Amino acid sequence: MPYFDKNYHPPCTPPGTLVEHAPGEPGALTIRLIDYTDQEYLDQLLTNADECRPYLERDSVTWIHFQGHIQAEMLRNIGELFGLHALAMEDVMNSGQRPKVDEYEDQLFVIMAMPGSREHGVALEQVSIFMGKNFLISFHNGEADPFEPLRRRLQKHSGRIRSLKADYLLYGILDLVIDQGFPILESLGERIETLEYELLDTPTRATLAEIHRLRRELLLLRRMLWPHRDVISYLLRGDLALIGQGTLIYLRDCYDHAVQIMDLLENYRDMATSMLDVYLSSARHRLNEVMRLLTIIATIFIPLTFIAGIYGMNFENPDSPWAMPELGWYYGYPLIWGVMLLVVVGMLIFFRRKDWL
Amino acid sequence: MPYFDKNYHPPCTPPGTLVEHAPGEPGALTIRLIDYTDQEYLDQLLTNADECRPYLERDSVTWIHFQGHIQAEMLRNIGELFGLHALAMEDVMNSGQRPKVDEYEDQLFVIMAMPGSREHGVALEQVSIFMGKNFLISFHNGEADPFEPLRRRLQKHSGRIRSLKADYLLYGILDLVIDQGFPILESLGERIETLEYELLDTPTRATLAEIHRLRRELLLLRRMLWPHRDVISYLLRGDLALIGQGTLIYLRDCYDHAVQIMDLLENYRDMATSMLDVYLSSARHRLNEVMRLLTIIATIFIPLTFIAGIYGMNFENPDSPWAMPELGWYYGYPLIWGVMLLVVVGMLIFFRRKDWL
Amino acid sequence: MPYFDKNYHPPCTPPGTLVEHAPGEPGALTIRLIDYTDQEYLDQLLTNADECRPYLERDSVTWIHFQGHIQAEMLRNIGELFGLHALAMEDVMNSGQRPKVDEYEDQLFVIMAMPGSREHGVALEQVSIFMGKNFLISFHNGEADPFEPLRRRLQKHSGRIRSLKADYLLYGILDLVIDQGFPILESLGERIETLEYELLDTPTRATLAEIHRLRRELLLLRRMLWPHRDVISYLLRGDLALIGQGTLIYLRDCYDHAVQIMDLLENYRDMATSMLDVYLSSARHRLNEVMRLLTIIATIFIPLTFIAGIYGMNFENPDSPWAMPELGWYYGYPLIWGVMLLVVVGMLIFFRRKDWL
Amino acid sequence: MPYFDKNYHPPCTPPGTLVEHAPGEPGALTIRLIDYTDQEYLDQLLTNADECRPYLERDSVTWIHFQGHIQAEMLRNIGELFGLHALAMEDVMNSGQRPKVDEYEDQLFVIMAMPGSREHGVALEQVSIFMGKNFLISFHNGEADPFEPLRRRLQKHSGRIRSLKADYLLYGILDLVIDQGFPILESLGERIETLEYELLDTPTRATLAEIHRLRRELLLLRRMLWPHRDVISYLLRGDLALIGQGTLIYLRDCYDHAVQIMDLLENYRDMATSMLDVYLSSARHRLNEVMRLLTIIATIFIPLTFIAGIYGMNFENPDSPWAMPELGWYYGYPLIWGVMLLVVVGMLIFFRRKDWL
Amino acid sequence: MPYFDKNYHPPCTPPGTLVEHAPGEPGALTIRLIDYTDQEYLDQLLTNADECRPYLERDSVTWIHFQGHIQAEMLRNIGELFGLHALAMEDVMNSGQRPKVDEYEDQLFVIMAMPGSREHGVALEQVSIFMGKNFLISFHNGEADPFEPLRRRLQKHSGRIRSLKADYLLYGILDLVIDQGFPILESLGERIETLEYELLDTPTRATLAEIHRLRRELLLLRRMLWPHRDVISYLLRGDLALIGQGTLIYLRDCYDHAVQIMDLLENYRDMATSMLDVYLSSARHRLNEVMRLLTIIATIFIPLTFIAGIYGMNFENPDSPWAMPELGWYYGYPLIWGVMLLVVVGMLIFFRRKDWL
Repeated sequence: MPYFDKNYHPPCTPPGTLVEHAPGEPGALTIRLIDYTDQEYLDQLLTNADECRPYLERDSVTWIHFQGHIQAEMLRNIGELFGLHALAMEDVMNSGQRPKVDEYEDQLFVIMAMPGSREHGVALEQVSIFMGKNFLISFHNGEADPFEPLRRRLQKHSGRIRSLKADYLLYGILDLVIDQGFPILESLGERIETLEYELLDTPTRATLAEIHRLRRELLLLRRMLWPHRDVISYLLRGDLALIGQGTLIYLRDCYDHAVQIMDLLENYRDMATSMLDVYLSSARHRLNEVMRLLTIIATIFIPLTFIAGIYGMNFENPDSPWAMPELGWYYGYPLIWGVMLLVVVGMLIFFRRKDWL
Repeated sequence: MPYFDKNYHPPCTPPGTLVEHAPGEPGALTIRLIDYTDQEYLDQLLTNADECRPYLERDSVTWIHFQGHIQAEMLRNIGELFGLHALAMEDVMNSGQRPKVDEYEDQLFVIMAMPGSREHGVALEQVSIFMGKNFLISFHNGEADPFEPLRRRLQKHSGRIRSLKADYLLYGILDLVIDQGFPILESLGERIETLEYELLDTPTRATLAEIHRLRRELLLLRRMLWPHRDVISYLLRGDLALIGQGTLIYLRDCYDHAVQIMDLLENYRDMATSMLDVYLSSARHRLNEVMRLLTIIATIFIPLTFIAGIYGMNFENPDSPWAMPELGWYYGYPLIWGVMLLVVVGMLIFFRRKDWL
Repeated sequence: MPYFDKNYHPPCTPPGTLVEHAPGEPGALTIRLIDYTDQEYLDQLLTNADECRPYLERDSVTWIHFQGHIQAEMLRNIGELFGLHALAMEDVMNSGQRPKVDEYEDQLFVIMAMPGSREHGVALEQVSIFMGKNFLISFHNGEADPFEPLRRRLQKHSGRIRSLKADYLLYGILDLVIDQGFPILESLGERIETLEYELLDTPTRATLAEIHRLRRELLLLRRMLWPHRDVISYLLRGDLALIGQGTLIYLRDCYDHAVQIMDLLENYRDMATSMLDVYLSSARHRLNEVMRLLTIIATIFIPLTFIAGIYGMNFENPDSPWAMPELGWYYGYPLIWGVMLLVVVGMLIFFRRKDWL
Repeated sequence: MPYFDKNYHPPCTPPGTLVEHAPGEPGALTIRLIDYTDQEYLDQLLTNADECRPYLERDSVTWIHFQGHIQAEMLRNIGELFGLHALAMEDVMNSGQRPKVDEYEDQLFVIMAMPGSREHGVALEQVSIFMGKNFLISFHNGEADPFEPLRRRLQKHSGRIRSLKADYLLYGILDLVIDQGFPILESLGERIETLEYELLDTPTRATLAEIHRLRRELLLLRRMLWPHRDVISYLLRGDLALIGQGTLIYLRDCYDHAVQIMDLLENYRDMATSMLDVYLSSARHRLNEVMRLLTIIATIFIPLTFIAGIYGMNFENPDSPWAMPELGWYYGYPLIWGVMLLVVVGMLIFFRRKDWL
Repeated sequence: MPYFDKNYHPPCTPPGTLVEHAPGEPGALTIRLIDYTDQEYLDQLLTNADECRPYLERDSVTWIHFQGHIQAEMLRNIGELFGLHALAMEDVMNSGQRPKVDEYEDQLFVIMAMPGSREHGVALEQVSIFMGKNFLISFHNGEADPFEPLRRRLQKHSGRIRSLKADYLLYGILDLVIDQGFPILESLGERIETLEYELLDTPTRATLAEIHRLRRELLLLRRMLWPHRDVISYLLRGDLALIGQGTLIYLRDCYDHAVQIMDLLENYRDMATSMLDVYLSSARHRLNEVMRLLTIIATIFIPLTFIAGIYGMNFENPDSPWAMPELGWYYGYPLIWGVMLLVVVGMLIFFRRKDWL
């Protein structure tokens, strides 16, 4: 997960220019048309976006989902067909956009960031949505199609979903994208707990790197999920012609979820910071204990070794009474042991009084 | 207390789906009906929610409290009986919600987080409340019934509580839930004081873990109690038909309490951070003292030991005048002691001048 | 100064319940009546609150001050006499309240926190004030009566104070309470300066504990004085019938003082944090210097001692030319000294090049 | 990149005074006139600003760009010609201004900060723009002309740019300046990643200096790019006569870019702080490991060396049975080895139990 | 520069009381009258404030500046003459006020904090200004008169200053006071740069104290300069009768300067914090390097010294084959060297593999 994960045009590219940043093989795109009313439900794969034209004129909700890598050429065609704004289409191509909602004359354009867990941490994929009066076009440039469960719900006619308009479908998609945050947060929560046990038990350098990675992922999530609140609260304002009154109450629920996710993210960040403090303190505490022992053993033995060293000297002038006479004393050796014992006992008393032992 | 303590549906579950997250034994639920006017007071256990139907039509305040684990089936029945909104009922089931208030046509739906102290720290339990014109339904999924004292107040007709409508009962519940914060904060305050004495006295590694746990609990409390302010200030707006003018002044008192609790929580958080700093500094200070002693003792004895080592060498060529002649000097041994004394005195002066002693 | 310094009722006590938290001896209360117009001034001690009744009907300003521990019974009587709201009276009893202003029909209820310096740090005492059209009731539960100077001003007719109404008296009290902050801040400022000199000079562990205590007191002051701003700005709104236009300009001055005090408090907090950093760095710097010396002395003498140790070995096979022949060399001893000198010089050069000396 | 990078007049210089701060050679300035309508396009170098006069009266968009060091004299002339406000012209001369937009009667004056990467880090250059009904004057005091690509776009008639008015040209310039942020952020992101690998691998003191430099550059960028948001949102208000409705949608896109850049900058700052923590912890962790080994080796060998020292002493009174009789024991030497082994084993067990090994 | 640098009255002093805090010698005050219209300019020293009376009635702008220590008596006279409000005059005496603007009936009262550099750091002096329809009174209690350049501008009739009213004079003073911030910030910026080089080169304990002093000065500046923004934006509101429309555009320029100064101050604060981190890390890094060397040298030589110690023991029972037979071996001495070499090589390999060398 690189730090800068955004596709952008070189400065001064004319607005609305559509360029592919990593030209992929043409076959990597799936176009799926879902067309439904309360009574009917149609789900088919298209080879060309133009094929959806007949469905647009009917009074049904037409949902076209582009899964995978879309090419500039095709996007331009779709833009003409549905009258999409050039700036919006540019944002579809330049993935890594901040979530936002733009209001055009008779369309809404919404960008969301869908969180997902990858092998090497958390990742975010852009979901772009155009919504008109009776159609919705969605783009997701990733491998797996995240909207499969939503289609199943449509097909089964479960919930109120099929009797309502495109705005309710939009809610369905937003809700799905936002709720992806919960399993991610759950697994992050578990990672934090594991880290905590590790920290208080046996902190290693890998623990430190892991805390850093965690903070990095939390920062990424926060940056990209924070604007979701603004997106939903914009839709909630209640003066958008395309969002019916009946859908507002569901969007409010959606808003509550977005707020909860941000709350948890903030908490996790605080905990990650606190863990770093604990790591540092814990490591320092271990060192202190070790150092204290070294000091005590060293300070006890260093003077003793010096005393032993003294009497290992070879001063041996037999004529001089000053040449280490202690060596020849009758009780010299036990006396030295006595002196050493005194030194040890004195030091132990000193250490005990200083409260170091 | 896990980090992620929320029940949630898998993404893309239709809104309003009621599923039990940990299906419990059916008998764990108590339904209690309280029905009162200024004159009468009735308190009885129900086996089925339907039994409350006759009370709804009277001009009394009907309070039904569900204590314990409620099953999806029963909740659905209650929903139909009282016309509760599906999204609200979903929030009742998915506990761990952020406190909030939702306004439906002729009902208010309030979620609160009731703090309580458990063996292993602080815990929060969700209290969900529906209020209509003359009824109030409350849910609390926990072991002990927290509303026992409120019922006693109702029964004794103490205060103005029984002469007023359901909105005053709602105030009574909110006030009770919020005021639970005070004993919790009092005990947290005591824990902080104990920790502080420990810190400045004999900090151990357990102290550190305890500070970390404290910060974690303060974060949890803050996340869940902060929205209480918003809940009360929403009710205080004064334009809700269901909240009478007379109740507003009491809710304002309630609001003051919520603010006081947040103020104290913020202070505690600052103190916990400050304690960590003190812990680190205190530990480091001890180490420094110990290290200084080691240095002084080591630097004094290391050169002395070297000198003793020199004269322990066995250079003994009797033909060479260069073979350690000092050993044969008449005053050699006292001279060496003199040299050593000079070294010690010189060092002590050096240390004293450096202000290390 | 405990962390949790608030009296509160157990949760679910009916609102407006008046209970004494630490029932004191009845005699500890002084009731003082001041009644003045531009011409007259009366100051007398009452034994019973009822005695003030005749003064209320006159067109004078009547100020009744309760100094000391008030009992629930008496407060209830006063409440009836003046028509005080039960919730406000509860706040008078439950001291430790957050400063606030409540507006009742024809009364204002103000709570302030009066800072004062005690032996063991800063303390805050609650001052509660009821103000009506021509009366003012104040409560202060402490030993010394803080309003003595105000009474002297009233008596001397100094300033405009006596020609104005109760609202100007209220301003006088608020101003007095807020201005108590300046001497406190002055002494805190001096403490910080003393600490700073200590820090850069000879930091001890007591310095650290003192910094911690300082931060704690600053936090307490901040929590309790911050709401003063809101209290005054509420009164400044200009739409309160009880506050005359002429008094507003004085309240604005009062507001400026409250803001200045908060500004200084914030600065002090920042300085306290900075001091902790300096303490840590300073302590670490001392340790580093000490450690560097240890390293240099140890690394110089350890190899020398080893060399001396080598030639203290007793290999003495007279038949073997390999048995420490150096010991028998003619220049063996000076050679060893030469080798040692080389080691020392080499190391000194190494240290100097590493910039450690 | 100095910390204070602003040209300013000495205090009390009359407003609107034009003084060159670093008088350059007169030839360093290029004046370029671009004049276009939908049909025509003219691009020519001027030697004197007066030469543009004939173009102003036509209904074309006239863009005069001053590239390089402008002299006070010439600026004064331009000011008279176009009726520019003295205060605005002062800001053109005193480079290092905060980005802002000022609205004069029939002109807009915009200051932007164009980020660019230099050898020794990031730099910001001021771009000043005056816009009137059908003209636009821009100043850029730098070496390279940043607007070359914009002129190419105008010439090629690519996009809608030439069919629109001066406000769209203004958008083109703002967009170009803001988008310069993306490549800068991309390269900063790469620097952070490189630093991170270095940190967890082999942190050196240069790493630390590099983190500090990075934080400094991020601070600079943040200070100067933050106001871009305000500039664009001022233009977006929609009530400026000079900004057409059609341009607003493009400015909104521009605003999104500015917000994205700030978001990324904030994240980078957080990561830089986190990296410093990791650096500190990482360095400390290495030290701890090293220290632990020292302790273990030292504490094992210090007592052993002492024991060996004991039996190196020369107590040799042949008459005394107390003179180190151990030396004469039959199994004395192996016994000593046994004692030493016991000491070693005992210590290893102790360390293992303390979990230090 | 003490922390608490404010003159204040004892609590409960009547509002508007004028008392000198440090009664100075009467001669220390200079009163200067400037009276000008477009045509005329008069500048004279007064001995008594009353002398300005004749100028007040003319249609000229009359500016009276009090430089130095003003006495309560004189201030009271001026107050009567010009009808100044008592509270405002109190603020003139009690210097160290927070910058603010107060609006009286037909007067504006402005307090500014003028930054200046002193020997021992930054200092702030209070400038107090009263402005009426055609007069302006300013007070500055300091040694040097800061308004000398402004008077020169007035005299030379440079800029538009003399043709305009008192409000433009007010702008001139505010601009002068605010712009004093730029040279201060420039010198602070240089100090930070010097500190940075010192930090990365040879950090000493004095560096630390200097960083602390810098943070302290930045805090002081921030506290006192921050309100300048509010002062100017209050004047900018556009509904003050005393501030003409023509002056607003100049005040906006002034506002931009105030904002720029705050921006730079904030950046400096961040850099000062970052520098402290670098200081700590840098010091720690040096220690770590030193410690690593100690470890390596000590761990290599400690075992070697032990081995040498072993063979310095005097076990010499000629009858025992166990009494250090190694000493008598033919190749004993070279063998010991071999063993020592093995130990050294083994350790070097160990250290290299641990990446410590």
